[in-house]
Formats: sequence, structure tokens, C-alpha cells
Amino acid sequence: MSPADATTSHGPSRRGFLTGSAAAVGVATGAAGGYAAARAVQVDEPGDTTGANGGRAAAFAGAHQAGITSSPGAHGTFLAFDLVDGSTRDDLRRLMRLWSDDARRLMAGQGALADTEPELAAAPAGLTVTFGWGRAATVLAGGEDAAPAWLKPLPAFSIDALEDRWSDGDLLVMIHADDPVTVSHAARMITKDATSLAVHRWHQTGFRQAYGSHASGTTMRNLFGQVDGTTNPPVAAEEFARRVWISDGWLTGGTSFVLRRIRMDLAVWDQVDRIGRENAVGRTLDTGAPLTGTVEHDEPDLDAVDARGFPIISDVAHLRRARPGDPAQRIVRMGFNYDEPARGGAEAEAGLLFGSVQADVDAQFVPIQERLAQADLLNVWTTPVGSAVFAILPGCSQDGYLGDGLLEG
Amino acid sequence: MSPADATTSHGPSRRGFLTGSAAAVGVATGAAGGYAAARAVQVDEPGDTTGANGGRAAAFAGAHQAGITSSPGAHGTFLAFDLVDGSTRDDLRRLMRLWSDDARRLMAGQGALADTEPELAAAPAGLTVTFGWGRAATVLAGGEDAAPAWLKPLPAFSIDALEDRWSDGDLLVMIHADDPVTVSHAARMITKDATSLAVHRWHQTGFRQAYGSHASGTTMRNLFGQVDGTTNPPVAAEEFARRVWISDGWLTGGTSFVLRRIRMDLAVWDQVDRIGRENAVGRTLDTGAPLTGTVEHDEPDLDAVDARGFPIISDVAHLRRARPGDPAQRIVRMGFNYDEPARGGAEAEAGLLFGSVQADVDAQFVPIQERLAQADLLNVWTTPVGSAVFAILPGCSQDGYLGDGLLEG
Repeated sequence: MSPADATTSHGPSRRGFLTGSAAAVGVATGAAGGYAAARAVQVDEPGDTTGANGGRAAAFAGAHQAGITSSPGAHGTFLAFDLVDGSTRDDLRRLMRLWSDDARRLMAGQGALADTEPELAAAPAGLTVTFGWGRAATVLAGGEDAAPAWLKPLPAFSIDALEDRWSDGDLLVMIHADDPVTVSHAARMITKDATSLAVHRWHQTGFRQAYGSHASGTTMRNLFGQVDGTTNPPVAAEEFARRVWISDGWLTGGTSFVLRRIRMDLAVWDQVDRIGRENAVGRTLDTGAPLTGTVEHDEPDLDAVDARGFPIISDVAHLRRARPGDPAQRIVRMGFNYDEPARGGAEAEAGLLFGSVQADVDAQFVPIQERLAQADLLNVWTTPVGSAVFAILPGCSQDGYLGDGLLEG
Repeated sequence: MSPADATTSHGPSRRGFLTGSAAAVGVATGAAGGYAAARAVQVDEPGDTTGANGGRAAAFAGAHQAGITSSPGAHGTFLAFDLVDGSTRDDLRRLMRLWSDDARRLMAGQGALADTEPELAAAPAGLTVTFGWGRAATVLAGGEDAAPAWLKPLPAFSIDALEDRWSDGDLLVMIHADDPVTVSHAARMITKDATSLAVHRWHQTGFRQAYGSHASGTTMRNLFGQVDGTTNPPVAAEEFARRVWISDGWLTGGTSFVLRRIRMDLAVWDQVDRIGRENAVGRTLDTGAPLTGTVEHDEPDLDAVDARGFPIISDVAHLRRARPGDPAQRIVRMGFNYDEPARGGAEAEAGLLFGSVQADVDAQFVPIQERLAQADLLNVWTTPVGSAVFAILPGCSQDGYLGDGLLEG
């Protein structure tokens, strides 16, 4: 480089490749349901240092949004916004076009439009940016008839100690990737681009096991040490489709998302011995097997009794209380741990961002939560402090934008 | 598993293997300087799901502590404690024995003694737990003569806006790993085991690029998008040894650590165009090359001028101001980004946990910081809000404990 052009910047030329690649993949996998993730690993210039997992780019386009159909990755950030007062349907359309463009580019490893730090986007690491609407946004887009009956705050549960600062919201943006830098940068771009159209409501961030730490498919553990999400079916399974996808109306291909912020009292939990803790859950802590089984995915035998005639899996064990008889009424869990040091006026706190995906909140999530609120040994050590419900928009085409099915009507 | 033993827990038998392995590795690499990391990947029972990077165990024993000689990993947590009033030398010895035992086990993928969630320790993912002392702890252990002259708060700099809640401390524990769950669990065990001997002072946590995101050896980027730490020599290099290791007295094999919490004003930074930002740093943002070079590790030409006779690298560019003429006076940087949402009374903030390792704080760190405080274009967008200095203890043998060189005297 000669001194004369030493102060000129060049965007990495690789980005052109990644866009093209991801676009092609989007078309290809859209037909197959949109949930395949592409490995877009390419090194075409010196200084291009994206690693194998860093270059992994999820397809933006498809019948479903990629954040529901891919593994959540090691890092998750959840951003809620409220529409500014007096927002119109045109404003919402403008915001969704802008955000969809951000998601399309960022997921492909490009900077967003007018990105000031595009280098922080270069390793998508499986990034997904997923959008949901609360009731107000849905009604603004399509009128009262467009909003499903379940799209409202959950009923009050006796165990709740909800705080407004972690609850509700008009718009949800859910950002997952294996790299915390990628997630931080994407959250920043999404927040910047909301300016003037939506105001920040809350921001929650969490983590799961890192890429490479455990064999692929290993169930995550929460900070109680429990496996968390054992009964989630594989994304490609018919059972996943039955539990998750909405199949009629403008939300076809979409779903619903419930986020509960569950504070966990680790200090008191640690005072209970392992037998007591395993009894509370109904699973062993080491392998996660049900107390009537030997490996994690064994079906629990809820009728089994011990030599004295007592149930092996307690009547109030979490496993028993959480489980609907009909698997179609089950939910798909998507949890992230949080562990936040004291800062300013805020005390240290730890817990679980309990995410749950299901086709119908009232038919699936609410009955489970009601049973757990009535009786669940885990309630002793856990407190829900935040709660929010969103409709997750269906996917869109590569040239479309999220929400276009309703906003273009 | 029969119903009769269904409530019995079994610690993973794999742990025995990992201990043995790590101990052997500790001995083997201790002789070579203690900074080799071993891959202790072993699958010996169903349900053992540790992944290739998850099983990576750093050696505990050696001439140096592993956290200085290994890559810092994707996640870093820094814990400062104060000794309780009236602490004796025996108390400090007891604490260091306990903490060393924790570090030895956790780094090998075992639970700590009386660990209530040993499953969260099973994937060390390169975990290192590194200990340092402030002046009070050093004097308690060995008297005034044992404390180096530099072991005190840094001189006040004009750019500082230090807050007590991020500054100083009697004891430092620095926890690095590629997995955030592993780091969170290790921090929890270290904090629990301090009870009655030391009180929590501050807790700062940050992140770098994830394992697998970039090619091995890629320099991290901070949230300004800059490469950060380009001039760090490889750990095995003679230059690393010259910059880092203390070579006389009881601290031989140890070093010093400065942690500065640098708040970054991302919103204002983003208003500056790329040329202005590259001029502030003296490097291009995309490759990190000096403005007089073409690739990141090119030596900058500080004498080069443009066609009009102006220096290509500004007189007040960060690169120029930060660079001592004598490489032996340079520091080794170990930065972690932080990006913390608003919570409770605390506003959202982002920045860099600027860690710096050097043999002599006064001879290396202070002159650099003085030059930067006098003039550095980056000062416009950055504010140091926390500052702490610690002596990093030399390594110990597999049966020893950190600090034994002074505490057994």
C-alpha cells in the first residue's frame, strides 16, 4: 500500500461472496422448509480469518424464520421495543423492512446498511435474528382479527413476582449466535435502526454451552446443573412441526414465543443434597435420566413405585408436573442462563431466560404453567420475575421482509 | 437402573481419568515452562458428551500460572476480594490452599471439593484460574520487603474518572475459558470458598471472539471494531519472557497485572467517518495494518510522510503514543469486551476490560499510560472508570499451592 492511499478503507471483498452464497442457499432451502443452515466458509484474501464455525451462515429466507429452526447457539440476546406513540401501519412497515434488511445482511456475515463496524459482523457464527410482534403491533398491521386470542400477557400465576422492566413489549428481536461479539454487534445495529420508530423497552442476555464444548446435540444445562430441554424433538421431526408451527391464517409458518425470566436462588439450592435435588426434578443430575431410567432420553415411567409403594418420580416432581399427556400439547424449550454481577444499584442475580416456542400459547404453555404453579418442587428455588408473549412472524422470501404477508395485504 | 437405586447419584467416573491425566501433564509441561495446554479428551462412558474443545485442560502446575501463558479464551471474569479485618498470615495460607485446590480440580474438569454442580465443571474448555495479590495481601504474607514498589494504585491520570466500585482490591482471581457456563460455575465456586476469609469487592466479566469463529491466532477486536493486541508476542517467544516474567525474588516466574475498565462511547465514535477513526488509531480498521503498511503485523513506519509532508501516522495516533522505543518496555495486552444492558439503577454501558501483563508496572505500564493521558486521539471516546494493580503469583508444583513460596517461608 502506498502512503497516498494509506488512509483509504476497503470493505472486505469476501462479503460479496457471502451475500451471493447465502442468497443462493436461501432459495435452495426455502423449498425444504428453510431450516437448513449453510456453511459459507471461504478464504479469498489475506487477512480473512473467519474460522469454520465463524463462517457458518443461516439462511435468511424460507417458510420459517431461521432462529426457530436452528440450534440457538451459545449466546442469546432478547430485545423488546415499544412502538412510539402515534405509529402508523406505514411506520411499522418501514421498520420491518429496515430490520429485515439488517437481518439478511448480518446473518450472511455482512455489515448492516451504514454499519460503522462491519468487521464485527464478518463471522456470523450461525447468527439468527428473529422477529416477533406483541398484540399492539399485530393489530396495527392487520386489525383486531389478525391477533390470535393467545397474544396477550399470560394469566397471573401464584408463583409470579413479575417486574415491569422484564415484561411485555410491542416488538421482540431475538438474536442468537455462537459468538458473543457477533451477538453484541447485531444487537447494537438493530437498536440503532429502531431509532425514531420504536423505543427500547428491555434487553436480556444469556448463554448456553459454547460451540465445541460438548458433542453436537448435547442438551444444555442450567445453573442448577440440570439438563434443560431433554424432551425437545429434533427440528426436522414431524413432532417438532406439530408442536411449533401455526398452520392457518397469516401466521402460517410462524409460531409463538414466551419468554419468562426465572430468577434462581442458587445459594439455597446448594443447601439441598443431591437426592433431594434429583427428587425435585425427577431426573438424575449427572446423566439427566429420569429416576426410572438409565439414560437421558428414556421415557419416564410415571407409574413406577419403590419397594414401599411410593412413586419413584414424585407426584410433585418437575418432570411429572411439566408433562402433558398428549405430546402435541408440549412446548419446545429454548433456555439461556444468565449470571449478572452486581452493578450500580442492581444486585447480582442468576437464573434462566426460559424461552418457549409453541403453536398455541393457551393450548400448550398455559396448562403446563398452571400445573407448575399449583405444585412443583422447583418452585422453592425459582421465581418468575419477567414474562412476555409474542407472535413469531412467518419467514419471508429473499426479497421480502418479515411481516410482509400482513403488511402488504 | 433398577427402581431401588434410582435415587442414588454417581459422580462421572471420567473425572478420575481427567485428574490423573492433568497431573501427568502438569509434571511434563512444568519442566518446559508450564505453558503447554493438554487436550484431555476421553469418552469412556455413555452420556459423556464433552466435545473436543470442551475437554481441553490447561496444566495447573508449572513455573508460571497457566492463565498468563495460555490464550485467554472467549470469556473472562475478574473477581476482586478484600481480606476480612484482622486476617492473619495463617488465614491467607488457608485461603490460598483452598483456592489452589479449586483451581487444580476445576482446570482438570472436576468439580471443586464439595461442589454442588460438578456437571458444570465437566468441560473445562481451556479453563484457567489465576491468582494475584494486592499490596495488603503481599505484606501480610511476607512483610513490607516482599511487596514490589509498583504494587500500589497507579498514579492519577488526567483522563481518569475512576469509581471505587471497579478499583483496587486485596486479592484477584482471574477466570478464563472458552465456555461461559464453565466460567460462571468456576466464579461461583471461588466465591463460595472465599466465605469467612475474604469479602467480595468487585466482579467484572467480558468476552472475546468465540472458539471456532476465527482462525487460531486471529487478534481480537474491541467494540470499536479495532484489532486489539497486535503487538503481543507469542507466549513461547523470548520477547514474551522479557516483557512479562519477573526474574528475581520470591515473585520469580510471576508477573504483574493491571486491569483498567475503559468505558467506550460507541454512539459518538459511530459519528466519526472511517478515515477519522483510522487516523485516531493509526491502523486501518479492516485488516488492522498500520497506515504505512498492508498487513496487520507490518512494522509501522513512524517517519513516513505523505505528499504534503504530514506524518502518515499522526503524532497523536494511539499506535504512536502507545509504543515505547524499547520493545522490552512494552506490555502484553489481554482485553475483554463488555456490553451490559441497563439493569436496576445501572445504565447500559459498553467498553473494554483492558488487562495488561508486564514484569514491572512502573517501568512498562506507567510510561505508556502517561503518554496516552497526555495525548491520544482515542481519549475522545474512552474513559477509564476502574483501575487495579496486582502481583500475579508464580506457579507452583502439582502438590503445592499458589503463594507457597512466600507463605511457607
